[in-house]
Amino acid sequence: MRVLKVNKENTKNILSDLLKRSPNNYDQYAGTVQGILDEIKEKGDEALFAYTEKFDKCKLTKDTIQVTEEEIKAAYEKVDDSLVEVIRKSLVNIREYHEKQKRNSWFDAKPDGTILGQKMTALASVGVYVPGGKAAYPSSVLMNIVPAKVAGVEKIVMVTPPNKDGEVTPATLVAANEAGATHIYKVGGAQAIGALAYGTESIEKVDKIVGPGNIYVALAKKAVYGHVSIDSIAGPSEILVLADDTANPHYVAADLLSQAEHDELASAILVTTSKTLGEKVQEEIEGYLKKLSRAEIIEKSLENFGYILEAETLDEALEVVNAIASEHLEIVTANPFEVMTKVRNAGAIFIGEYSSEPLGDYFAGPNHVLPTNGTAKFFSPLNVDDFVKKSSIIYYSKDALKAIHNDIETFAKAEGLTAHANSIAVRFEEEE
Amino acid sequence: MRVLKVNKENTKNILSDLLKRSPNNYDQYAGTVQGILDEIKEKGDEALFAYTEKFDKCKLTKDTIQVTEEEIKAAYEKVDDSLVEVIRKSLVNIREYHEKQKRNSWFDAKPDGTILGQKMTALASVGVYVPGGKAAYPSSVLMNIVPAKVAGVEKIVMVTPPNKDGEVTPATLVAANEAGATHIYKVGGAQAIGALAYGTESIEKVDKIVGPGNIYVALAKKAVYGHVSIDSIAGPSEILVLADDTANPHYVAADLLSQAEHDELASAILVTTSKTLGEKVQEEIEGYLKKLSRAEIIEKSLENFGYILEAETLDEALEVVNAIASEHLEIVTANPFEVMTKVRNAGAIFIGEYSSEPLGDYFAGPNHVLPTNGTAKFFSPLNVDDFVKKSSIIYYSKDALKAIHNDIETFAKAEGLTAHANSIAVRFEEEE
Repeated sequence: MRVLKVNKENTKNILSDLLKRSPNNYDQYAGTVQGILDEIKEKGDEALFAYTEKFDKCKLTKDTIQVTEEEIKAAYEKVDDSLVEVIRKSLVNIREYHEKQKRNSWFDAKPDGTILGQKMTALASVGVYVPGGKAAYPSSVLMNIVPAKVAGVEKIVMVTPPNKDGEVTPATLVAANEAGATHIYKVGGAQAIGALAYGTESIEKVDKIVGPGNIYVALAKKAVYGHVSIDSIAGPSEILVLADDTANPHYVAADLLSQAEHDELASAILVTTSKTLGEKVQEEIEGYLKKLSRAEIIEKSLENFGYILEAETLDEALEVVNAIASEHLEIVTANPFEVMTKVRNAGAIFIGEYSSEPLGDYFAGPNHVLPTNGTAKFFSPLNVDDFVKKSSIIYYSKDALKAIHNDIETFAKAEGLTAHANSIAVRFEEEE
Repeated sequence: MRVLKVNKENTKNILSDLLKRSPNNYDQYAGTVQGILDEIKEKGDEALFAYTEKFDKCKLTKDTIQVTEEEIKAAYEKVDDSLVEVIRKSLVNIREYHEKQKRNSWFDAKPDGTILGQKMTALASVGVYVPGGKAAYPSSVLMNIVPAKVAGVEKIVMVTPPNKDGEVTPATLVAANEAGATHIYKVGGAQAIGALAYGTESIEKVDKIVGPGNIYVALAKKAVYGHVSIDSIAGPSEILVLADDTANPHYVAADLLSQAEHDELASAILVTTSKTLGEKVQEEIEGYLKKLSRAEIIEKSLENFGYILEAETLDEALEVVNAIASEHLEIVTANPFEVMTKVRNAGAIFIGEYSSEPLGDYFAGPNHVLPTNGTAKFFSPLNVDDFVKKSSIIYYSKDALKAIHNDIETFAKAEGLTAHANSIAVRFEEEE
C-alpha cells in the first residue's frame, strides 16, 4: 500500500488511477458485444443456443433452457442447511429495509378544480443477471431480486450461465428461489443480455436488466440501455475507511482486506488523521496476510489500488473522501454520526467500530449493489425506486383551464407552436 | 391517418413502426460522435473551440464562451414582456409541483442498537443541454432546470449553441435566468456533451447531463453514460388519446394535432371504442389543417405515425394503450379517473375533457420531459429524484453485531470470502 499525504495532486492521481478500472475503458470489446446482440435480435433462440454452446460448452434446447422445479429441489439437496438458514434470516432483514423505501402514489387536489400527482407503478418484468462459474454469490442474488419483489414486479427472470453439463450453481438456485425469482434460464454473457433486451422464442423481453457481470455483460447492458432500462454499470469493489486515532487498527486492517480480497482490481483505502494509526494498520495487514486464504489476490489489489492517505485535519480527510466517492465508506472516528453529516458521496456509509463492511454485504438489510468508481456522486444503491416508474397525473376542470388559458396560448405562440395554442383555444372559442 | 381495428397483429406492427423513430437506430453516427468526445477529452478547450467554429461557424475564446450578466440583461430587452410574465407564472406552478416530490432522509433506529436508513444528497452539479437554432423552447429550459434547483443542486450549467455572431437565443437566456441556471456556456452538439462529461479548461465536469438534443447529442449522452449520469434518451413526441363516445371530436382532433405539429417523426394516435368518434375526429382534422401554420409538418407526421384505432371494448383499448406506453395520454371517457387506474404505462396522464396536453407542456406544473418511444414502461418523467442520490446508512452496536456475527461468518465462508468472515470474527475473537 502506498502511503501518501492528502493534497490536491495526490487526490487527482489516485482518482485517475482508480478510474482506469472503469468498464468505460474497455470499449475495444464493444464491437464484439454489438455483434452478439445483433445476432440475438435477428435470430433469437438459434443464436442464443449457438453462443451458449460456443462460450459455455453447453447444448441447450427450448425444452432445457429453463430451470425446472425438480432442478430447484435438487439444488437444495446440494446446499448446506446452514447456508439455507442464513439466507432466510438475511432475507427477513433485506425485505424489511426495502419495504421502508416504498412510496405511495400521491395527488394534490385544490378547490379551484385541479388535481396534480404522481402515480407509482411497478415495472412489469425485470431480468436479473447472475454470473456463473466457481465463485457463486447467493447474497448478490438476494440483493438484486428483493428490491424488485418488494416494488411489486410480477415477473422476475433470472439468467445465469450453465456448466457444460447444463447445470447451474446450486446456491444460486436456492437463493433465487428463496428471494422469489419467477423464471430462471440457463444462459449467460452478452447473449443473455440480448435475450432479455430483445426477447427470443424462449425468453420474453423484459423492461429492465440488473445484476453484475463481466466486461462483456457490462458492455452489453450499456448497449441495450434505452431499449430497456438497466441498473448502473458495476465496476470493481472498493472500501474507504475514514479513521482517527480512536480507531482500532486490528479492525481497520481486517476491514480493508475484506474488500481487497474480491479481485485484483478491488481498491482499499485508509484516510486517517493519525499517522500512528496508518503505521499500525500496515503492520496488522502484514499479520493477516499470513493467514488469509486469498492473500495472493489481496496483495495484488493492495499494491495496485491500496492507499494509506494521511490528512492534517478531519476536514481535509473529508475532502478526499468526497472526491473519491467510495462504494463503501466506514467512519471510525470520534463522533462518527457528526462526521457522516459531512459526507456527500458514498454508496453505503458504515458508522462506528462495529459496523464492519461485510455486515452490509450479507445481513443488515441495505443493498450491497452499490455505485462504484466514483459514481456515488450521482448513482444510488440499488433500491425499490429502481423498479417503480412514475406517471404524472393532470386534471383541470373547465373553470380551472379557463382561468389560465390565455397564458398557455401566449406561451405556445411564443414558441411558434400554433396547434398547441389552438388545442387550448378551441375549448373556449364559443364563449368569447 | 390510418384507421385500424385493435388486434394483436396491428398492435405489433404499430409498435415496430413507432420504434423506427428511436435514437437507438442511428448507431451509424456513433463513431463520429465518439471521435468528437475523444478529442474533447484529450484536447479540452482547443477541440471545443474548433468544433464550435466548424459546426456553429462561431469563433469562441476562453473569454467569450460564457454568457455574461450583460448578455442576459440584453436578452430581456429582446423578449416580449408578455412571455416573461407567463414564464414567471408557469415557474410558480412548476416549482410547487416539484417541491412536493422532495423526500427526507430517513432512518429506523431499533432498541437492539441498530440504525439503518437512507441519506438523501443533491447532486453537486448538473449540465442542461438546450438546443439552439430558430425554434427556441423556453418552456423546456424551465422544465430541465427547476427539478434540479428544487432538489438542491448548487451548480446548474446550461449549454446551448451560439449563432455565427456568438449570440444565444434571447428567450432561452431569459428562461435560464428565471429558472436559476448558475452558468451558461455558448456551446452545443456532441462537443458540448463532451465538455460537460470530461471537463475542459473553461467548463468544469458535471455529475449529470439532462436535456433534449439532436441525434448527435442523444448518442453523445449515451456514450458518456456511466462516466456521468444522464436523463433518459429523448425520442420524438407522442400523444395517445383514449376516448369513448362521450368525447368531443373537435377537442380530440385539436389535441392530436398539437403533438403532430412537433416534427415529422411525432406520433398522434386515437384509440376509441366509438367508430363514430373516429370518423368525426378525422373530419375535424381536415378542417383544422386548413388553418394551422404548421400544416405541412402535421400532414407528414399523421401520414407516417398517426393512427385511429377502433377497439371493441374499453379493456381492449386499454391493452393497446399499455402496449404503446405513450409519452402523453389523454383519457376522455366517462369515468376517466376509474379508467386511469387501469393505465400501467404512460409518461403523463391527462384526465378529462379540459386537461388538454399543452396544459402540461407549459403551465400545470408537472414536467414535460417525459419518456418516449415506449420507454414509459420503465422510465419516468424528469423529477426531483433524478437530481438526488441516496447513501445507505448502517450502524450496529457491539451487542447487535455480536448477536448475529456467526450468521455473517457462515454466509461469507459459503461464498469463499474468508477475509470478509475474518473482519467480523476479529471483533469477537478475544471474547470467545
